Amino acid sequence: MKSPLTGTSVIGYSRGQGETPAGQAVHASSGAKLEPIYLSATPEEVDQAVELAATASPLYSKLTGKERGAFLRAIAAELEAVVDDIAERGTLETGLPDARLRGETGRTTGQLRLFAALVEEGSWVDARIERAQPERQPLPKVDIRSMLKPLGPVAVFCASNFPLAFSVAGGDTAAALSAGCPVVVIAHHAHPGVAEIVAQAILRAALATGMPEGVFSLLYGGGPAVGIPVVQHPAIQAVGFTGSRHGGTALMAAAASRPQPIPVYAEMSSVNPVVILPGALERGEAALAEAFFNSLVLGVGQFCTNPGLVFLPDGMGLVFLDRLKQLVGTSMPGVMLSEGVAQAYVDAVDAFANSEGVETVGRSAAPNGTGPGAAAIFSVSVRRFLEDDLLQSEIFGPAALIVRGSLAEIEATIPELEGQLTATIHGTEAELAHHSALVAALANKAGRVIFNGFPTGVEVCHAMVHGGPYPATSDGRSTSVGTMSIQRFVRAVCYQSFPDAILAPELQDANPLGIWRTEEGKRLPPP
Amino acid sequence: MKSPLTGTSVIGYSRGQGETPAGQAVHASSGAKLEPIYLSATPEEVDQAVELAATASPLYSKLTGKERGAFLRAIAAELEAVVDDIAERGTLETGLPDARLRGETGRTTGQLRLFAALVEEGSWVDARIERAQPERQPLPKVDIRSMLKPLGPVAVFCASNFPLAFSVAGGDTAAALSAGCPVVVIAHHAHPGVAEIVAQAILRAALATGMPEGVFSLLYGGGPAVGIPVVQHPAIQAVGFTGSRHGGTALMAAAASRPQPIPVYAEMSSVNPVVILPGALERGEAALAEAFFNSLVLGVGQFCTNPGLVFLPDGMGLVFLDRLKQLVGTSMPGVMLSEGVAQAYVDAVDAFANSEGVETVGRSAAPNGTGPGAAAIFSVSVRRFLEDDLLQSEIFGPAALIVRGSLAEIEATIPELEGQLTATIHGTEAELAHHSALVAALANKAGRVIFNGFPTGVEVCHAMVHGGPYPATSDGRSTSVGTMSIQRFVRAVCYQSFPDAILAPELQDANPLGIWRTEEGKRLPPP
Repeated sequence: MKSPLTGTSVIGYSRGQGETPAGQAVHASSGAKLEPIYLSATPEEVDQAVELAATASPLYSKLTGKERGAFLRAIAAELEAVVDDIAERGTLETGLPDARLRGETGRTTGQLRLFAALVEEGSWVDARIERAQPERQPLPKVDIRSMLKPLGPVAVFCASNFPLAFSVAGGDTAAALSAGCPVVVIAHHAHPGVAEIVAQAILRAALATGMPEGVFSLLYGGGPAVGIPVVQHPAIQAVGFTGSRHGGTALMAAAASRPQPIPVYAEMSSVNPVVILPGALERGEAALAEAFFNSLVLGVGQFCTNPGLVFLPDGMGLVFLDRLKQLVGTSMPGVMLSEGVAQAYVDAVDAFANSEGVETVGRSAAPNGTGPGAAAIFSVSVRRFLEDDLLQSEIFGPAALIVRGSLAEIEATIPELEGQLTATIHGTEAELAHHSALVAALANKAGRVIFNGFPTGVEVCHAMVHGGPYPATSDGRSTSVGTMSIQRFVRAVCYQSFPDAILAPELQDANPLGIWRTEEGKRLPPP
Repeated sequence: MKSPLTGTSVIGYSRGQGETPAGQAVHASSGAKLEPIYLSATPEEVDQAVELAATASPLYSKLTGKERGAFLRAIAAELEAVVDDIAERGTLETGLPDARLRGETGRTTGQLRLFAALVEEGSWVDARIERAQPERQPLPKVDIRSMLKPLGPVAVFCASNFPLAFSVAGGDTAAALSAGCPVVVIAHHAHPGVAEIVAQAILRAALATGMPEGVFSLLYGGGPAVGIPVVQHPAIQAVGFTGSRHGGTALMAAAASRPQPIPVYAEMSSVNPVVILPGALERGEAALAEAFFNSLVLGVGQFCTNPGLVFLPDGMGLVFLDRLKQLVGTSMPGVMLSEGVAQAYVDAVDAFANSEGVETVGRSAAPNGTGPGAAAIFSVSVRRFLEDDLLQSEIFGPAALIVRGSLAEIEATIPELEGQLTATIHGTEAELAHHSALVAALANKAGRVIFNGFPTGVEVCHAMVHGGPYPATSDGRSTSVGTMSIQRFVRAVCYQSFPDAILAPELQDANPLGIWRTEEGKRLPPP
């Protein structure tokens, strides 16, 4: 039963009663338990949330882009109004610093407004018009008009490492709501209190802008009790997830085993290879080491774009390595997101340290320099790297493996890598031009290719691709960041021989919304 | 061993040796065996074909749109040069009439040229440019530019019912080659000779336009021996298939069980519901019955868009039903594509005829009026329809089920239907406006919604959506017909901070290809 000391799921515009405890947040650095205890949604509450989403779906999907935009902007404003609460609770639950939580809230409101502008403008639906040609020989041509339409209710799983930008009101939620899909969010057990604050902000925005009940729900509870049942509910039509490979593949299997399989967009695992060419070392090895190390330890290395794998040509980079050794030796361990993340990090670092042929470049000299959140840098030969699958696995935290080999060996290794979110190359412009096959091989493995930069820091914009071939994501054809992510939650539908007045405004002859369209294959600007 | 009496796979620019017989085509109406015997590709030949495709992939993917366009146009011209051979062999293998085979060849060359024009023009890559803002606060903005890139080698399975348009040089092959993906085609056992003629045309075009070896191969052999191994080869990156639900789901499972799962675009099963509103009957019941019957028996009903399910309001349509009974009674059975298709049709029709509550509206009065290729029309109450899953299953051939109920019952039944390629509504414009929820429900179930027409006849154009929610297709987010199908075989890749000269021309500042692009979210015409 609900009490002042328990928190429960948000089911449409009501609160659930809950069942067994879904867990209790703990203070990230002290380990002290934080009130309240959050109760797992009951099976009935899971059904209610999804059924409300299904009921809301036809109503919500036919709202105009301007109406959906107003809802998204209202969410952004409500979030800004509670940023102090978010920062206060967030620092306790996640150990992330106050500035990061405020900055991540800003990124979250920014992406909500970017999507609002997209749907208010309206051209994103890719309206295509082919007019009838009744006189065409040998067969008349019928009138065919297509546009992108929402898939239906979407399940979104919160990420441990981004309590705002990839959680309750994060990228997948913004993209799904923009597309016209109701959203059922499954909270992450590590930051249930932030989830509650954000959910209440969304509810206030939904009520203020007159959204149908069920456009949003938030469920507490673990994967087997709540997450999998949501994914397997027949009304759910797509899934967004950011987390572990284990969690992502479990959702892929659950979605594939449904009577009607549905798309799963799971962002899972990436080591984000960095290739260093000789010219980059000639420019200044120490500065390169410092820039790399800053990217490695940013946010205690808890980013999906953390650069965990560096290819360094044989017989070069002594100063680079020395400087790295110095930086890591004098670094202090950071507070990790949760006890589970911290323990997994220590175990993974130990496994690398004890692997055959792996040498330690440097570890922190602090008293807890081999404990949670302490940076670690290893090196290994390219030959040994290719022999041991473990060495391609992601260490979630501030650890990196430097792979040594000839340039030819490095180039030959890229096609053997798994799919990645990002791939980076450091060198001169002349080297980049000379190594075009290497660039193409990196682009073949990743969603984003970076020149002379580092992968941490993902710009939220129209051109961003934050995705990549499996296992970086379950579906390398899509991005989880930027406006292209709206394509995750839509499909094209075409209308044949429909009267103009019955068509959606996007497809009507007069183009009343003034959007860009494609007519008979020609792109046309608004009238 | 290869002999003049055997046919073997096409492995790049060579012929395979083959192994065990993969089957022998039979004369569609007489059942006589047709020379030669086609030999199944050996496991080594399967590997060779895919490895050649993998080797060709980086070379082929970096060709310009104009170069790929020239290849596609050369294929079209080579096909036209052998249309007599295609028609001669095709009529023997498939029982389809000469005019249909020539028409389908024209559709196939038309879609090749439509894709050629698309890639020659070049804007389809959806180039997006976000320029650096080094002075931006609080963080500088980096330069990010994205475009669509090919996935890599694609496996394409030929369809039984379209020996040209959905086979060796059909829609998926055209889309994949346009996108920049080499193609490994798996021939259909029912028309191996047509496959060979078309493959030779593609090879001549590839050689004439200087394509890398491996851009195309054709493999003979069954699913377990050849099809599944191709799908599970690590170099294959996507699969296109048109066929049975059984075959499609087997490929989905094979692709999902790979270490790296890949997308499968399987078009499988659709009954293409038609809803008749009272106004359509008032316009003329006999004419409506005639138009419907023509669509039902076109091509002996062997189209994925065949209208197999009709919703007819209770207490109406007596003349419509009488006219249908008359038409079906006097119709003559047609020759079906193969013995297997013919037997499956007889079995499915029997199962419907013997289902509880199903009445026979009419069957052919010809001597073989209950045999292969003979039209059959049944009716059932909406209540009974909802109770028996069999009655939603596709009968591949000229059979339809008429479901009777009140308009409210019909509207309530639509959400219970499986996913469909098409959904059709007949009525007046006033009825269409009045039943907007019904239209939305139909659009929610299908890729194409048709007003006052019939689903057979799929226009190859930029706005066509030939796809729909599962099980119509395995991936309802895509189409297999029209230029949007190029999106099946691509993913977006973005380049961060790349020097202008290293970027693909599509992304360079000067826009040397003169394509439409999106800059900072704004669509811009060519300079």
